[in-house]
Amino acid sequence: MRESEFIEWIRSQSQFDPDIVPVGPGDDCAVIACGAERLIVTTDQVLDGVHFRLADHGPEAAGRKGMARNLSDVAAMAAAPFGAVAAVALSRGDLLDQAQAIYRGLRCAGDEFNCPVVGGDVAVWDSLLAITVTVFARPDGIEPVLRSGAEPGDAICLTGAVGGAFRTRRHLQFTPRVREARVLADQYHLHAMIDVSDGLAADLGHICTASGVGAQLWGDVVPIHPDAERQGGEDRPGLAAALGDGEDYELLFTVSADEAQSLLKRRAVDVPITHVGVITEGAGMMLICPDGTSRPLAPTGWEHQT
Amino acid sequence: MRESEFIEWIRSQSQFDPDIVPVGPGDDCAVIACGAERLIVTTDQVLDGVHFRLADHGPEAAGRKGMARNLSDVAAMAAAPFGAVAAVALSRGDLLDQAQAIYRGLRCAGDEFNCPVVGGDVAVWDSLLAITVTVFARPDGIEPVLRSGAEPGDAICLTGAVGGAFRTRRHLQFTPRVREARVLADQYHLHAMIDVSDGLAADLGHICTASGVGAQLWGDVVPIHPDAERQGGEDRPGLAAALGDGEDYELLFTVSADEAQSLLKRRAVDVPITHVGVITEGAGMMLICPDGTSRPLAPTGWEHQT
Repeated sequence: MRESEFIEWIRSQSQFDPDIVPVGPGDDCAVIACGAERLIVTTDQVLDGVHFRLADHGPEAAGRKGMARNLSDVAAMAAAPFGAVAAVALSRGDLLDQAQAIYRGLRCAGDEFNCPVVGGDVAVWDSLLAITVTVFARPDGIEPVLRSGAEPGDAICLTGAVGGAFRTRRHLQFTPRVREARVLADQYHLHAMIDVSDGLAADLGHICTASGVGAQLWGDVVPIHPDAERQGGEDRPGLAAALGDGEDYELLFTVSADEAQSLLKRRAVDVPITHVGVITEGAGMMLICPDGTSRPLAPTGWEHQT
Repeated sequence: MRESEFIEWIRSQSQFDPDIVPVGPGDDCAVIACGAERLIVTTDQVLDGVHFRLADHGPEAAGRKGMARNLSDVAAMAAAPFGAVAAVALSRGDLLDQAQAIYRGLRCAGDEFNCPVVGGDVAVWDSLLAITVTVFARPDGIEPVLRSGAEPGDAICLTGAVGGAFRTRRHLQFTPRVREARVLADQYHLHAMIDVSDGLAADLGHICTASGVGAQLWGDVVPIHPDAERQGGEDRPGLAAALGDGEDYELLFTVSADEAQSLLKRRAVDVPITHVGVITEGAGMMLICPDGTSRPLAPTGWEHQT
């Protein structure tokens, strides 16, 4: 089962009044009317053996990641977080120590963004540690940025550098780009945005699918993180990892070419931003390779030629 | 580790501005300011082997219970639910079938209370099925009813009957008392309320602790569900099960003696309501036994005499 397939099925099952649920399943967060306000909400789990390894990383890092992943989804909408709840399924062992360490991790990530843990649920079971966090946010003066607004001709921009996050502890220790997203969306008209969790190619694919557009990604300028593995035989070492690894939690967004020029010149935020490609008409993504040739880019990463 | 101990520790770790977080950890839901509105929120998980058995009950019943448990927490605050998100950790197998059945179960419970599933997260792991649901609600004209408002002299009232929910499928198929809670809290000044999930004695204990009061529970009138196990040697068959089993998801609330009289006479809601005891000064709970003697009632259920 691919998650995107399941989400498509869910979307086919649910019809929302756009005044009540302006954004349903399939974006980084949902948006739902809460009386006169709009509530922006996301839920995400971190699981032992999938998103962290308890034996290696410990419960505090797991809790921190649980909160930070959700805050990254909030950042992807340029929303302002204001609170969270967490449900924790503890494996048997030093329960109180484990629970307290997880809570410290949640707080460590949440406190930085004024996102208190206001409630939760703890249970014990004969299985592995699972942490589910739900974060609430508000537009607070900035219209939520969706995945679906990219337009042909848009510049594709990326904060930071990508690749290899799982080879180090970076996938546990990243700082969600909440502040950067707010500043950028306040000063520029961002057409579409997503956080890079599945991988640069996959997440660009999500924007393209949601927006009904294609993309051209420039392989020679994609910022490759030093963590990225340099495999033999690549025309640019580390590029495959940068495109496919994921868990970078950087912001990938599109703006008009004019605004991109201004944004890149002005250095609106402290983190580096790179113009990595352009949105195109139609469907499908192309990778312009460092040697000047181009090839189809699958939304799961580099599509190897056979 | 006892959950109450951990919650106490969490409460010692968090200081909230009461204008921003009027109700933090430790009640059935949290209450948090969302701009000009108040958001009432709860998160609860159902775990294979703890809250359901996947092999026996199937994924749809598990999903239904995941939503209904949360709606029961919302009912305990007399709040009006308006949406939910769900995170599902699937064990390997027929993933799409499993995911779709869980979603149908969530919808089955949510649709009845205008509580759509607006977002979620699905992952696959080498472990057991875990479903975490977060439900959002609003006061919508009715002040949230907390656990902490019980006063000496209050009548203790209970909807429905309790005991033995785990001996049948009742713990999977109950209807959360959302409507009843709204009607009661609209028409009467409920001082304190909780849903019976841990067990009648334990949940009455939660009200007493939060309110700084004691209670006298009348063993001869506690409504015992037909599911409750009748053990030998009890002075009233099934009473121990009624006090200790839990997972009944009935409403336990306190009101002034005068209001209780009116409420019991008027049959404000369709479900039967029984006056099962009285709130007392000081701490500690007493069970008035059917034979007229009294004994201490532990918040974990019947305290057997040794």
